[in-house]
Amino acid sequence: MLSKNTIKLIASLSQKKFRTQHQLFIVEGVKGIQEFLDSSFELYQLFATEANFSAETILISEKELQKISNLKSPNTALAIFKIPKQKTAEANGLILVLDEIRDPGNLGTIIRLCDWFGVKTLVCSEGTVDCYNPKVVQATMGSLARVHISYTNLSNYLKTANSAVFGTFMEGNNIYTEELPKEGIIVMGNEANGISLEVEQLIHKKLSIPRFGNLQTTESLNVATAAAVVLSAFRRGF
Amino acid sequence: MLSKNTIKLIASLSQKKFRTQHQLFIVEGVKGIQEFLDSSFELYQLFATEANFSAETILISEKELQKISNLKSPNTALAIFKIPKQKTAEANGLILVLDEIRDPGNLGTIIRLCDWFGVKTLVCSEGTVDCYNPKVVQATMGSLARVHISYTNLSNYLKTANSAVFGTFMEGNNIYTEELPKEGIIVMGNEANGISLEVEQLIHKKLSIPRFGNLQTTESLNVATAAAVVLSAFRRGF
Repeated sequence: MLSKNTIKLIASLSQKKFRTQHQLFIVEGVKGIQEFLDSSFELYQLFATEANFSAETILISEKELQKISNLKSPNTALAIFKIPKQKTAEANGLILVLDEIRDPGNLGTIIRLCDWFGVKTLVCSEGTVDCYNPKVVQATMGSLARVHISYTNLSNYLKTANSAVFGTFMEGNNIYTEELPKEGIIVMGNEANGISLEVEQLIHKKLSIPRFGNLQTTESLNVATAAAVVLSAFRRGF
Repeated sequence: MLSKNTIKLIASLSQKKFRTQHQLFIVEGVKGIQEFLDSSFELYQLFATEANFSAETILISEKELQKISNLKSPNTALAIFKIPKQKTAEANGLILVLDEIRDPGNLGTIIRLCDWFGVKTLVCSEGTVDCYNPKVVQATMGSLARVHISYTNLSNYLKTANSAVFGTFMEGNNIYTEELPKEGIIVMGNEANGISLEVEQLIHKKLSIPRFGNLQTTESLNVATAAAVVLSAFRRGF
Protein backbone atom coordinates (compact mmCIF):
# COMPACT_ATOMS: atom_id res chain seq x y z
CA MET A 1 0.00 0.00 0.00
CA LEU A 2 1.15 3.49 -0.81
CA SER A 3 0.60 6.18 1.79
CA LYS A 4 -0.83 9.54 0.79
CA ASN A 5 2.45 11.15 1.82
CA THR A 6 4.47 8.88 -0.44
CA ILE A 7 2.20 9.61 -3.41
CA LYS A 8 2.52 13.34 -2.67
CA LEU A 9 6.32 13.12 -2.35
CA ILE A 10 6.69 11.26 -5.68
CA ALA A 11 4.41 13.71 -7.50
CA SER A 12 6.36 16.65 -6.07
CA LEU A 13 9.65 15.26 -7.44
CA SER A 14 8.64 16.10 -11.00
CA GLN A 15 9.40 19.71 -10.01
CA LYS A 16 12.96 20.95 -9.58
CA LYS A 17 12.05 22.98 -6.50
CA PHE A 18 11.04 19.85 -4.60
CA ARG A 19 13.91 17.74 -5.95
CA THR A 20 16.27 20.36 -4.55
CA GLN A 21 14.36 20.55 -1.25
CA HIS A 22 14.28 16.77 -0.70
CA GLN A 23 17.52 15.98 -2.59
CA LEU A 24 15.72 13.08 -4.23
CA PHE A 25 14.82 12.09 -7.81
CA ILE A 26 12.80 9.44 -9.65
CA VAL A 27 13.98 6.61 -11.90
CA GLU A 28 11.45 4.43 -13.74
CA GLY A 29 11.91 1.05 -15.39
CA VAL A 30 13.69 -2.13 -14.28
CA LYS A 31 16.75 -1.63 -16.49
CA GLY A 32 17.36 1.98 -15.47
CA ILE A 33 16.80 1.26 -11.78
CA GLN A 34 19.23 -1.69 -11.92
CA GLU A 35 21.91 0.57 -13.44
CA PHE A 36 21.49 3.06 -10.59
CA LEU A 37 21.54 0.24 -8.01
CA ASP A 38 24.82 -0.97 -9.54
CA SER A 39 26.30 2.53 -9.34
CA SER A 40 27.37 4.73 -6.44
CA PHE A 41 23.89 6.31 -6.20
CA GLU A 42 22.07 5.69 -2.93
CA LEU A 43 18.55 4.21 -3.03
CA TYR A 44 15.86 5.92 -0.97
CA GLN A 45 12.78 3.81 -1.82
CA LEU A 46 11.90 1.22 -4.45
CA PHE A 47 8.38 0.34 -5.58
CA ALA A 48 7.61 -2.54 -7.94
CA THR A 49 4.79 -4.82 -9.02
CA GLU A 50 7.16 -7.83 -8.79
CA ALA A 51 10.07 -8.66 -6.46
CA ASN A 52 12.78 -8.51 -9.16
CA PHE A 53 15.50 -6.63 -7.30
CA SER A 54 18.13 -7.57 -4.74
CA ALA A 55 17.37 -4.25 -2.98
CA GLU A 56 14.52 -3.85 -0.52
CA THR A 57 11.30 -3.51 -2.55
CA ILE A 58 7.87 -2.20 -1.58
CA LEU A 59 5.39 -4.29 -3.57
CA ILE A 60 2.54 -2.32 -5.12
CA SER A 61 -0.27 -3.06 -7.55
CA GLU A 62 -0.24 -2.05 -11.21
CA LYS A 63 -2.96 0.45 -10.43
CA GLU A 64 -0.83 2.04 -7.71
CA LEU A 65 2.16 2.19 -10.07
CA GLN A 66 0.02 3.91 -12.69
CA LYS A 67 -0.90 6.52 -10.09
CA ILE A 68 2.71 7.45 -9.27
CA SER A 69 4.30 6.99 -12.72
CA ASN A 70 5.26 9.86 -15.03
CA LEU A 71 5.05 7.56 -18.04
CA LYS A 72 2.09 6.92 -20.31
CA SER A 73 2.83 3.19 -20.26
CA PRO A 74 4.49 2.59 -16.91
CA ASN A 75 7.08 -0.15 -16.56
CA THR A 76 6.89 -2.46 -13.52
CA ALA A 77 9.04 -0.40 -11.14
CA LEU A 78 9.69 3.12 -9.87
CA ALA A 79 12.52 4.11 -7.55
CA ILE A 80 13.48 7.18 -5.57
CA PHE A 81 17.23 7.80 -5.40
CA LYS A 82 19.20 10.37 -3.43
CA ILE A 83 20.81 13.18 -5.41
CA PRO A 84 24.55 12.85 -4.76
CA LYS A 85 26.55 15.79 -3.39
CA GLN A 86 28.01 17.80 -6.25
CA LYS A 87 31.73 17.14 -6.55
CA THR A 88 34.19 19.56 -8.12
CA ALA A 89 34.48 18.83 -11.83
CA GLU A 90 37.55 16.78 -12.79
CA ALA A 91 40.26 18.68 -14.59
CA ASN A 92 41.49 15.86 -16.82
CA GLY A 93 40.28 13.87 -19.79
CA LEU A 94 37.82 14.97 -22.43
CA ILE A 95 35.26 17.27 -20.81
CA LEU A 96 31.96 18.41 -22.31
CA VAL A 97 30.52 21.79 -21.30
CA LEU A 98 26.89 22.75 -21.97
CA ASP A 99 25.91 26.40 -22.27
CA GLU A 100 22.16 26.74 -21.53
CA ILE A 101 20.76 23.50 -22.97
CA ARG A 102 17.00 23.73 -22.36
CA ASP A 103 15.46 20.58 -23.80
CA PRO A 104 15.37 17.55 -21.46
CA GLY A 105 15.52 15.12 -24.40
CA ASN A 106 18.66 16.83 -25.73
CA LEU A 107 20.39 16.73 -22.33
CA GLY A 108 19.43 13.05 -21.89
CA THR A 109 20.79 12.17 -25.33
CA ILE A 110 24.02 14.09 -24.65
CA ILE A 111 24.55 12.26 -21.32
CA ARG A 112 24.10 8.98 -23.20
CA LEU A 113 26.67 10.15 -25.78
CA CYS A 114 29.15 11.02 -23.00
CA ASP A 115 28.78 7.50 -21.63
CA TRP A 116 29.41 5.98 -25.09
CA PHE A 117 32.39 8.18 -25.92
CA GLY A 118 34.03 7.85 -22.49
CA VAL A 119 33.45 11.45 -21.43
CA LYS A 120 33.26 11.15 -17.64
CA THR A 121 32.74 14.83 -16.84
CA LEU A 122 29.87 17.00 -18.02
CA VAL A 123 29.83 20.63 -16.81
CA CYS A 124 26.57 22.54 -17.25
CA SER A 125 25.77 26.25 -17.00
CA GLU A 126 23.39 27.09 -14.21
CA GLY A 127 20.59 27.71 -16.73
CA THR A 128 20.88 24.25 -18.30
CA VAL A 129 17.91 21.93 -17.65
CA ASP A 130 18.23 19.90 -14.42
CA CYS A 131 19.75 16.46 -15.06
CA TYR A 132 17.40 14.92 -12.45
CA ASN A 133 14.33 16.08 -14.41
CA PRO A 134 12.31 12.84 -15.02
CA LYS A 135 12.41 13.34 -18.81
CA VAL A 136 16.20 13.67 -18.72
CA VAL A 137 16.59 10.60 -16.48
CA GLN A 138 14.37 8.61 -18.87
CA ALA A 139 16.27 9.73 -21.98
CA THR A 140 19.67 8.81 -20.48
CA MET A 141 18.73 5.12 -20.34
CA GLY A 142 20.89 4.62 -17.24
CA SER A 143 23.93 6.57 -18.49
CA LEU A 144 23.25 9.22 -15.84
CA ALA A 145 24.58 6.71 -13.31
CA ARG A 146 27.98 6.73 -15.05
CA VAL A 147 28.62 10.35 -16.07
CA HIS A 148 29.66 12.92 -13.47
CA ILE A 149 27.55 16.07 -13.92
CA SER A 150 28.00 19.44 -12.23
CA TYR A 151 26.28 22.83 -12.55
CA THR A 152 28.38 25.95 -12.27
CA ASN A 153 29.09 29.43 -13.57
CA LEU A 154 30.76 28.66 -16.92
CA SER A 155 32.83 31.87 -17.08
CA ASN A 156 34.47 31.13 -13.74
CA TYR A 157 34.97 27.49 -14.67
CA LEU A 158 36.52 28.18 -18.07
CA LYS A 159 38.74 31.02 -16.77
CA THR A 160 40.49 28.62 -14.39
CA ALA A 161 40.60 25.61 -16.76
CA ASN A 162 44.01 24.09 -17.56
CA SER A 163 43.04 22.47 -20.87
CA ALA A 164 42.39 23.93 -24.30
CA VAL A 165 38.79 25.09 -24.73
CA PHE A 166 37.02 24.22 -28.02
CA GLY A 167 33.62 25.36 -29.24
CA THR A 168 31.54 24.65 -32.34
CA PHE A 169 30.33 27.56 -34.45
CA MET A 170 28.96 28.14 -37.95
CA GLU A 171 32.41 29.54 -38.81
CA GLY A 172 35.54 27.80 -37.55
CA ASN A 173 38.24 25.27 -38.41
CA ASN A 174 36.93 22.16 -40.18
CA ILE A 175 36.46 19.51 -37.49
CA TYR A 176 37.36 16.73 -39.96
CA THR A 177 40.79 18.09 -40.87
CA GLU A 178 41.76 19.80 -37.61
CA GLU A 179 44.18 17.83 -35.42
CA LEU A 180 42.29 17.30 -32.18
CA PRO A 181 43.87 16.44 -28.81
CA LYS A 182 43.00 13.48 -26.57
CA GLU A 183 42.15 15.79 -23.67
CA GLY A 184 40.37 19.10 -23.71
CA ILE A 185 37.17 20.98 -23.05
CA ILE A 186 34.40 21.10 -25.67
CA VAL A 187 31.60 23.67 -25.33
CA MET A 188 28.18 23.11 -26.95
CA GLY A 189 25.71 26.01 -27.06
CA ASN A 190 22.02 26.64 -26.56
CA GLU A 191 19.49 25.14 -29.04
CA ALA A 192 18.35 28.51 -30.42
CA ASN A 193 21.21 30.92 -29.73
CA GLY A 194 24.35 28.78 -29.74
CA ILE A 195 27.25 29.66 -27.42
CA SER A 196 26.70 32.88 -25.45
CA LEU A 197 28.98 35.87 -26.11
CA GLU A 198 30.41 35.73 -22.59
CA VAL A 199 31.46 32.09 -23.02
CA GLU A 200 32.62 32.61 -26.63
CA GLN A 201 35.33 34.97 -25.39
CA LEU A 202 36.84 32.15 -23.30
CA ILE A 203 37.12 29.71 -26.21
CA HIS A 204 40.62 29.10 -27.55
CA LYS A 205 39.73 27.33 -30.80
CA LYS A 206 36.60 27.62 -32.92
CA LEU A 207 35.56 24.48 -34.78
CA SER A 208 32.83 23.92 -37.32
CA ILE A 209 31.04 20.90 -38.76
CA PRO A 210 31.05 21.27 -42.55
CA ARG A 211 27.67 21.22 -44.25
CA PHE A 212 27.30 19.12 -47.40
CA GLY A 213 23.69 19.86 -48.22
CA ASN A 214 21.89 22.95 -49.44
CA LEU A 215 24.05 25.94 -48.48
CA GLN A 216 21.28 28.51 -48.84
CA THR A 217 19.33 27.50 -45.74
CA THR A 218 20.18 28.82 -42.31
CA GLU A 219 19.22 25.54 -40.66
CA SER A 220 21.65 24.11 -38.13
CA LEU A 221 22.17 20.65 -36.68
CA ASN A 222 20.29 19.71 -33.53
CA VAL A 223 22.66 20.16 -30.54
CA ALA A 224 22.57 16.45 -29.62
CA THR A 225 23.45 15.28 -33.13
CA ALA A 226 26.12 18.00 -33.33
CA ALA A 227 27.56 16.66 -30.05
CA ALA A 228 27.63 13.16 -31.59
CA VAL A 229 29.63 14.45 -34.58
CA VAL A 230 32.03 16.45 -32.39
CA LEU A 231 32.71 13.70 -29.83
CA SER A 232 33.16 11.25 -32.68
CA ALA A 233 35.73 13.58 -34.29
CA PHE A 234 37.66 13.95 -31.01
CA ARG A 235 37.73 10.17 -30.45
CA ARG A 236 38.38 8.82 -33.93
CA GLY A 237 42.17 9.12 -33.69
CA PHE A 238 42.50 7.35 -30.35
CA MET B 1 -13.64 32.17 -40.43
CA LEU B 2 -12.96 28.47 -40.41
CA SER B 3 -15.70 26.16 -41.61
CA LYS B 4 -16.56 23.03 -39.62
CA ASN B 5 -15.43 20.93 -42.55
CA THR B 6 -12.00 22.59 -42.60
CA ILE B 7 -11.56 22.06 -38.86
CA LYS B 8 -12.57 18.43 -39.29
CA LEU B 9 -10.19 17.95 -42.24
CA ILE B 10 -7.23 19.42 -40.35
CA ALA B 11 -7.93 17.31 -37.27
CA SER B 12 -8.18 14.17 -39.41
CA LEU B 13 -4.72 14.80 -40.92
CA SER B 14 -3.01 13.88 -37.66
CA GLN B 15 -3.89 10.29 -38.61
CA LYS B 16 -2.03 8.45 -41.36
CA LYS B 17 -5.24 6.88 -42.69
CA PHE B 18 -6.69 10.29 -43.54
CA ARG B 19 -3.39 11.72 -44.81
CA THR B 20 -3.30 8.81 -47.26
CA GLN B 21 -6.96 9.25 -48.18
CA HIS B 22 -6.71 13.01 -48.81
CA GLN B 23 -3.02 13.02 -49.88
CA LEU B 24 -2.52 16.08 -47.67
CA PHE B 25 -0.37 16.91 -44.62
CA ILE B 26 0.08 19.73 -42.11
CA VAL B 27 3.00 22.10 -41.61
CA GLU B 28 3.02 24.56 -38.70
CA GLY B 29 5.15 27.66 -38.16
CA VAL B 30 6.14 30.52 -40.45
CA LYS B 31 9.68 29.28 -41.08
CA GLY B 32 8.71 25.70 -41.91
CA ILE B 33 5.83 26.81 -44.14
CA GLN B 34 8.12 29.23 -46.01
CA GLU B 35 10.59 26.39 -46.71
CA PHE B 36 7.80 24.27 -48.18
CA LEU B 37 6.52 27.24 -50.23
CA ASP B 38 10.05 27.67 -51.60
CA SER B 39 10.25 23.98 -52.52
CA SER B 40 8.48 21.87 -55.14
CA PHE B 41 5.67 20.99 -52.69
CA GLU B 42 2.21 22.21 -53.70
CA LEU B 43 0.21 24.31 -51.25
CA TYR B 44 -3.40 23.31 -50.60
CA GLN B 45 -4.47 25.89 -47.99
CA LEU B 46 -2.70 28.37 -45.74
CA PHE B 47 -4.09 29.80 -42.51
CA ALA B 48 -2.39 32.58 -40.56
CA THR B 49 -3.09 35.24 -37.98
CA GLU B 50 -1.10 37.76 -40.07
CA ALA B 51 -0.65 38.21 -43.82
CA ASN B 52 3.07 37.35 -43.87
CA PHE B 53 3.24 35.16 -46.94
CA SER B 54 3.36 35.76 -50.69
CA ALA B 55 0.96 32.81 -51.10
CA GLU B 56 -2.81 33.16 -50.75
CA THR B 57 -3.58 33.28 -47.03
CA ILE B 58 -6.83 32.72 -45.13
CA LEU B 59 -6.68 35.08 -42.15
CA ILE B 60 -7.86 33.54 -38.88
CA SER B 61 -7.89 34.60 -35.22
CA GLU B 62 -5.43 33.30 -32.63
CA LYS B 63 -8.30 31.42 -31.03
CA GLU B 64 -9.10 29.70 -34.31
CA LEU B 65 -5.43 28.79 -34.80
CA GLN B 66 -5.32 27.30 -31.31
CA LYS B 67 -8.30 25.13 -32.25
CA ILE B 68 -6.61 23.60 -35.32
CA SER B 69 -2.99 23.49 -34.09
CA ASN B 70 -1.24 20.30 -32.93
CA LEU B 71 1.22 22.35 -30.89
CA LYS B 72 0.95 23.37 -27.25
CA SER B 73 2.11 26.88 -28.12
CA PRO B 74 0.94 27.43 -31.69
CA ASN B 75 2.96 29.64 -34.01
CA THR B 76 1.09 32.20 -36.16
CA ALA B 77 0.45 29.96 -39.18
CA LEU B 78 -0.68 26.49 -40.25
CA ALA B 79 -0.61 25.18 -43.80
CA ILE B 80 -1.96 22.14 -45.61
CA PHE B 81 0.34 20.85 -48.35
CA LYS B 82 -0.23 18.12 -50.93
CA ILE B 83 1.73 14.91 -50.47
CA PRO B 84 3.86 14.59 -53.63
CA LYS B 85 3.68 11.45 -55.77
CA GLN B 86 6.31 8.95 -54.66
CA LYS B 87 9.15 8.89 -57.17
CA THR B 88 11.46 5.92 -57.64
CA ALA B 89 14.45 6.26 -55.33
CA GLU B 90 17.58 7.59 -57.03
CA ALA B 91 20.33 5.07 -57.57
CA ASN B 92 23.29 7.42 -57.14
CA GLY B 93 24.97 9.34 -54.37
CA LEU B 94 24.99 8.53 -50.68
CA ILE B 95 21.67 6.90 -49.79
CA LEU B 96 20.31 6.29 -46.29
CA VAL B 97 17.98 3.34 -45.69
CA LEU B 98 15.84 3.04 -42.54
CA ASP B 99 14.69 -0.37 -41.34
CA GLU B 100 11.57 0.06 -39.15
CA ILE B 101 12.29 3.39 -37.40
CA ARG B 102 9.28 3.93 -35.11
CA ASP B 103 9.88 7.19 -33.26
CA PRO B 104 8.72 10.36 -35.09
CA GLY B 105 11.40 12.45 -33.34
CA ASN B 106 14.12 10.08 -34.53
CA LEU B 107 12.87 10.13 -38.13
CA GLY B 108 12.61 13.94 -38.05
CA THR B 109 16.16 14.26 -36.71
CA ILE B 110 17.46 11.82 -39.34
CA ILE B 111 15.79 13.78 -42.17
CA ARG B 112 17.46 16.94 -40.82
CA LEU B 113 20.81 15.09 -40.77
CA CYS B 114 20.31 13.99 -44.41
CA ASP B 115 19.76 17.63 -45.36
CA TRP B 116 22.96 18.70 -43.54
CA PHE B 117 25.13 15.90 -44.93
CA GLY B 118 23.83 16.22 -48.50
CA VAL B 119 22.00 12.88 -48.54
CA LYS B 120 19.23 13.51 -51.06
CA THR B 121 17.61 10.08 -50.95
CA LEU B 122 16.11 8.41 -47.89
CA VAL B 123 14.53 4.97 -48.41
CA CYS B 124 12.28 3.68 -45.60
CA SER B 125 10.87 0.23 -44.91
CA GLU B 126 7.09 0.07 -45.08
CA GLY B 127 6.88 -0.18 -41.27
CA THR B 128 8.88 3.02 -40.69
CA VAL B 129 6.86 5.90 -39.20
CA ASP B 130 5.17 8.09 -41.83
CA CYS B 131 7.29 11.11 -42.75
CA TYR B 132 4.14 13.27 -43.01
CA ASN B 133 3.25 12.57 -39.36
CA PRO B 134 2.94 16.07 -37.76
CA LYS B 135 5.63 15.25 -35.15
CA VAL B 136 8.06 14.22 -37.90
CA VAL B 137 7.29 17.32 -39.99
CA GLN B 138 7.87 19.50 -36.90
CA ALA B 139 11.16 17.79 -36.01
CA THR B 140 12.56 18.17 -39.55
CA MET B 141 12.54 21.97 -39.27
CA GLY B 142 11.87 22.29 -43.00
CA SER B 143 14.42 19.71 -44.15
CA LEU B 144 11.58 17.46 -45.31
CA ALA B 145 11.14 19.88 -48.22
CA ARG B 146 14.66 19.07 -49.45
CA VAL B 147 15.13 15.31 -48.90
CA HIS B 148 13.49 12.80 -51.25
CA ILE B 149 11.80 10.09 -49.17
CA SER B 150 10.24 6.86 -50.37
CA TYR B 151 8.68 3.84 -48.65
CA THR B 152 9.29 0.42 -50.09
CA ASN B 153 10.04 -3.23 -49.40
CA LEU B 154 13.71 -3.08 -48.34
CA SER B 155 14.61 -6.62 -49.44
CA ASN B 156 13.45 -5.94 -52.99
CA TYR B 157 15.13 -2.53 -52.99
CA LEU B 158 18.49 -3.79 -51.69
CA LYS B 159 18.52 -6.87 -53.95
CA THR B 160 18.44 -4.66 -57.03
CA ALA B 161 20.79 -1.94 -55.72
CA ASN B 162 23.93 -1.18 -57.74
CA SER B 163 25.96 0.33 -54.88
CA ALA B 164 27.70 -1.27 -51.92
CA VAL B 165 25.37 -1.74 -48.95
CA PHE B 166 26.70 -0.83 -45.47
CA GLY B 167 25.08 -1.38 -42.10
CA THR B 168 26.04 -0.56 -38.52
CA PHE B 169 26.17 -3.35 -35.95
CA MET B 170 27.65 -3.93 -32.50
CA GLU B 171 30.32 -6.02 -34.27
CA GLY B 172 31.83 -4.81 -37.52
CA ASN B 173 34.75 -2.93 -39.05
CA ASN B 174 35.72 0.22 -37.14
CA ILE B 175 33.99 3.12 -38.89
CA TYR B 176 36.90 5.48 -38.06
CA THR B 177 39.59 3.41 -39.77
CA GLU B 178 37.58 1.82 -42.61
CA GLU B 179 38.00 3.46 -45.99
CA LEU B 180 34.53 4.60 -46.93
CA PRO B 181 33.33 5.41 -50.47
CA LYS B 182 31.72 8.64 -51.63
CA GLU B 183 28.64 6.79 -52.85
CA GLY B 184 26.83 3.89 -51.28
CA ILE B 185 23.85 2.72 -49.30
CA ILE B 186 23.85 2.92 -45.48
CA VAL B 187 21.23 0.96 -43.50
CA MET B 188 20.20 2.04 -39.98
CA GLY B 189 18.07 -0.34 -37.89
CA ASN B 190 15.11 -0.22 -35.54
CA GLU B 191 15.46 1.52 -32.15
CA ALA B 192 15.04 -1.66 -30.10
CA ASN B 193 16.02 -4.51 -32.42
CA GLY B 194 18.54 -3.02 -34.85
CA ILE B 195 18.67 -4.24 -38.45
CA SER B 196 16.28 -7.13 -39.16
CA LEU B 197 17.71 -10.54 -40.09
CA GLU B 198 16.17 -10.39 -43.56
CA VAL B 199 17.88 -7.07 -44.32
CA GLU B 200 21.15 -8.09 -42.60
CA GLN B 201 21.65 -10.81 -45.22
CA LEU B 202 21.69 -8.17 -47.95
CA ILE B 203 24.43 -6.07 -46.35
CA HIS B 204 27.86 -6.25 -47.97
CA LYS B 205 29.92 -4.61 -45.23
CA LYS B 206 29.26 -4.46 -41.50
CA LEU B 207 30.50 -1.35 -39.72
CA SER B 208 30.59 -0.49 -36.06
CA ILE B 209 31.00 2.68 -34.02
CA PRO B 210 33.67 2.02 -31.37
CA ARG B 211 32.61 2.56 -27.78
CA PHE B 212 35.03 4.44 -25.52
CA GLY B 213 33.06 4.36 -22.30
CA ASN B 214 32.13 1.60 -19.91
CA LEU B 215 32.37 -1.64 -21.87
CA GLN B 216 30.27 -3.68 -19.46
CA THR B 217 26.94 -2.07 -20.26
CA THR B 218 24.79 -3.25 -23.12
CA GLU B 219 23.56 0.26 -23.85
CA SER B 220 23.64 1.38 -27.47
CA LEU B 221 23.61 4.78 -29.14
CA ASN B 222 20.26 6.32 -30.06
CA VAL B 223 19.62 5.67 -33.78
CA ALA B 224 19.60 9.39 -34.67
CA THR B 225 22.94 10.10 -32.96
CA ALA B 226 24.36 6.90 -34.51
CA ALA B 227 23.22 8.19 -37.92
CA ALA B 228 25.04 11.47 -37.18
CA VAL B 229 28.28 9.60 -36.44
CA VAL B 230 27.95 7.35 -39.51
CA LEU B 231 27.09 10.13 -42.00
CA SER B 232 29.89 12.21 -40.56
CA ALA B 233 32.34 9.31 -41.08
CA PHE B 234 31.21 8.86 -44.72
CA ARG B 235 31.56 12.58 -45.44
CA ARG B 236 34.76 13.51 -43.60
CA GLY B 237 37.09 12.52 -46.47
CA PHE B 238 35.22 14.49 -49.15
